Amino acid sequence: MQSTYTDYVQQMRKIADITNAIAVLSWDNEIYLPDAGGPLRAQQISTLAGLVHEEFTSAPMGRMLKNLTGQKLSFKQSKNIHWTYRDFRRDKKFTADFVMKKSLVVSQSYHAWIEAKKKNDFAVFAPSLDKLMGVVREEAGILGFKHHPYDAHIDIYEPGMSVKRLDVIFEQVKSRLIPIIPGVRKITKIKAPFLTAKYPKDLQWKFGLALLEGMGYNFKKGRQDISAHPFTISFGTDDVRVTTRIDEKDFANMTWSCIHEGGHALYEQGLDGKEYGLPSGSAASLGIHESQSRLWENNVGRSKEFWQFYLPVLKKFFPQNLRSVNLDTFYKAINMVKPGKIRTEADELHYHLHVLIRYEIEKMIFESNIKAKDLKEIWNSKYKEYIGVDIKNDKEGILQDVHWSHGSFGYFPTYSLGSFYAAQFHYAIQKVAPNLDDHFAKGDYSDISNWLSKNIYRYGKTYTAEELCKKATGETLNFDYFMKYVTQKYGLI
Amino acid sequence: MQSTYTDYVQQMRKIADITNAIAVLSWDNEIYLPDAGGPLRAQQISTLAGLVHEEFTSAPMGRMLKNLTGQKLSFKQSKNIHWTYRDFRRDKKFTADFVMKKSLVVSQSYHAWIEAKKKNDFAVFAPSLDKLMGVVREEAGILGFKHHPYDAHIDIYEPGMSVKRLDVIFEQVKSRLIPIIPGVRKITKIKAPFLTAKYPKDLQWKFGLALLEGMGYNFKKGRQDISAHPFTISFGTDDVRVTTRIDEKDFANMTWSCIHEGGHALYEQGLDGKEYGLPSGSAASLGIHESQSRLWENNVGRSKEFWQFYLPVLKKFFPQNLRSVNLDTFYKAINMVKPGKIRTEADELHYHLHVLIRYEIEKMIFESNIKAKDLKEIWNSKYKEYIGVDIKNDKEGILQDVHWSHGSFGYFPTYSLGSFYAAQFHYAIQKVAPNLDDHFAKGDYSDISNWLSKNIYRYGKTYTAEELCKKATGETLNFDYFMKYVTQKYGLI
Repeated sequence: MQSTYTDYVQQMRKIADITNAIAVLSWDNEIYLPDAGGPLRAQQISTLAGLVHEEFTSAPMGRMLKNLTGQKLSFKQSKNIHWTYRDFRRDKKFTADFVMKKSLVVSQSYHAWIEAKKKNDFAVFAPSLDKLMGVVREEAGILGFKHHPYDAHIDIYEPGMSVKRLDVIFEQVKSRLIPIIPGVRKITKIKAPFLTAKYPKDLQWKFGLALLEGMGYNFKKGRQDISAHPFTISFGTDDVRVTTRIDEKDFANMTWSCIHEGGHALYEQGLDGKEYGLPSGSAASLGIHESQSRLWENNVGRSKEFWQFYLPVLKKFFPQNLRSVNLDTFYKAINMVKPGKIRTEADELHYHLHVLIRYEIEKMIFESNIKAKDLKEIWNSKYKEYIGVDIKNDKEGILQDVHWSHGSFGYFPTYSLGSFYAAQFHYAIQKVAPNLDDHFAKGDYSDISNWLSKNIYRYGKTYTAEELCKKATGETLNFDYFMKYVTQKYGLI
Repeated sequence: MQSTYTDYVQQMRKIADITNAIAVLSWDNEIYLPDAGGPLRAQQISTLAGLVHEEFTSAPMGRMLKNLTGQKLSFKQSKNIHWTYRDFRRDKKFTADFVMKKSLVVSQSYHAWIEAKKKNDFAVFAPSLDKLMGVVREEAGILGFKHHPYDAHIDIYEPGMSVKRLDVIFEQVKSRLIPIIPGVRKITKIKAPFLTAKYPKDLQWKFGLALLEGMGYNFKKGRQDISAHPFTISFGTDDVRVTTRIDEKDFANMTWSCIHEGGHALYEQGLDGKEYGLPSGSAASLGIHESQSRLWENNVGRSKEFWQFYLPVLKKFFPQNLRSVNLDTFYKAINMVKPGKIRTEADELHYHLHVLIRYEIEKMIFESNIKAKDLKEIWNSKYKEYIGVDIKNDKEGILQDVHWSHGSFGYFPTYSLGSFYAAQFHYAIQKVAPNLDDHFAKGDYSDISNWLSKNIYRYGKTYTAEELCKKATGETLNFDYFMKYVTQKYGLI
């Protein structure tokens, strides 16, 4: 019996329903789960994940995909089959034994990492990290690769991306970005006590909602809650939720995390709901997802024109703290560039040095049989070399990020790709919307929304990130745009 | 290959994980779902429900249950197989066509009921109700019954219960309870303006948490949220959540709904977590579940001794409203007996007349081919006859409850059974804990908790409700206890 595209859509939607149920369980897990509920919830999520795997890698699914590959379909339909078949073949490569082994090692590593961070002692995590590196090296072999074992992992997060491409990009970070940083540090230095004044929680919450509303986030199709680490999660285009955290002594933390997650959420809300569960209704890649959050957070949300509109709003919420602060001072303060040890607290420039360091270490992990115990020294010396800081303790050093303990290697580069794509998109938007800045100054972001809807949202994962970028901007990822953005921005401060 | 009990447990836990995922999705649906998320969520829940049905009624499941039925197992194990096999055989009776037909009719009826209630017009709901009655009559035929088609439905909610038993019970409601009500109405009449004073939301919320805490509800294994209709939901014994609603002009609403849901939640938190997913780890019946909420709400939560402890607490929260109210006045006011039209707002006595009316109408539906259009007049005349009120509009009459529109016929009687079981349990507890009231007056409910743990919680669904009742109190359900409770209580007011 010949499979129809409708059969395929039906099966994909069933899988999406289960996947989105997992997402609801995870959302609740991060926000509302009572203390004792953890083990139960982990088990429920694991059962559903098993069902997704069963449904996605079943023999009928394979026959259906093979069958549909030969059929005459529309462009979008054949792309959907293409991407799904690719993921199917990838997932089929793993034996149940390997999946269980990895899941066990990851689970142990995550707990070891928590413990190590609490004790501020990398040695507690190192043995688990060794096992983990063994597993992901093995995984690269199972997945297969043409040029570099690290490619197998990079491709999971950023389909089509490779060490070869990333080497070119990060080489430019080293040769072009690093040299200008000392100068920028000097000109952006400013004393800004208002940054650390007290901003009451409930008012910050309200300002955050106003920011999301202003960006065009649709609260009928989502909501905001509080969590330890801000995140965006989608259960389908009609229910895309964000979270934030509020530190009363640091309004900046809430503000830009709100805008950042808002950017992610607008992408998810903007995807084509009719393509629910299909690649064409899903995000293109992590890099493209990050381009959406970064474009809003930095290119829009740290621009002077954005604050021309929002500083008066912010002043209404916090008159005491901000009465005497003018736009120039505010703008300079929120764009201060100075070295630091923590990636998530880094400014727009240093951020990419943090990622560069992780990229170089991850590459090393796949190129050699380097031991975990040696990574700490490498980490610390790279921080000294690239950023000029002395890492004095592990929790501010090699233990700061959760990613490795989750078994994620190849994820970090997508953070930098996001910023670089964002700069390129920003210039493309400026080309078609010459009054972009004037509109920002009026709180009008329709130029951005329209361009993103037309060039990014509606395609979902029909194209790879670089194909999408070329279609939208006329060329594949080009680091020149990020350098141009940085030079223009900091040239004017 | 011989199935083992371990295989059975594994399969039941898998099913429980999916069922509990549905519960999480439903919880979120009632509390946090954004406006536009409804259709998506309904679809996700329906997909998971389909998976549960597939897993539960699969051929391997049937073979396993048949196989295990012949094996030598412990008492509890063989009871688990017994109950599961019974549910399996019941669920297998339905064809996919019938399940879809019922689900469609229910879905349409629910929307018609919402619409009808909004328009205050039963005629909008009647055509759907006719279809619905047709479907549930057909369902009774599919399920099969010995004596009365209504039995097939009653047995779903209260295994082992029947029209024959309920007729005896409700006959006593008519012959023994109804005659004493006029007298009780007279002696409980009191003017109590503090009942409708303004009680601020946040303080009511805090008082509610204090009540739950005092009852022994474990907040490490649960949480409270706000919803339109209060409910209790379990995702496993380590995560049992309650909701409440707060009306600033009616602190009683929040107070007793909080205690009521707390009673349900203590049952779920008290079940044996090691028996997760099995009958022995699940509630015995809806009647027994309701006995838990009613015991706390009425026998405990409307006793004078309970308020001897809590009135001073309540006064600390709301000194202005309650300064001049003494315990006697308070106790009398919260136990006022007066006729009304709405079941959920009824006092402890009239409540059972509301249920009696529904029971008589439901019985009629299965005994005859009565039409929906005739039910309204029957409803209104029964309200006049039993309660003495004139129903002037449909939303305060036949449209008040959601149950029928959900396809639930046979659910209502369990509400009354709950109160009657509660009275019987209350006397059994008094027998072993002669200082019960003194303990209540000190805020100590350990007599209750200990007895319920020992006699109810730990058995789960090992026994039917009446077997459990006999094991716990020495006899099956006996209406005398409720009458004794009522006579004692109102004799003293």
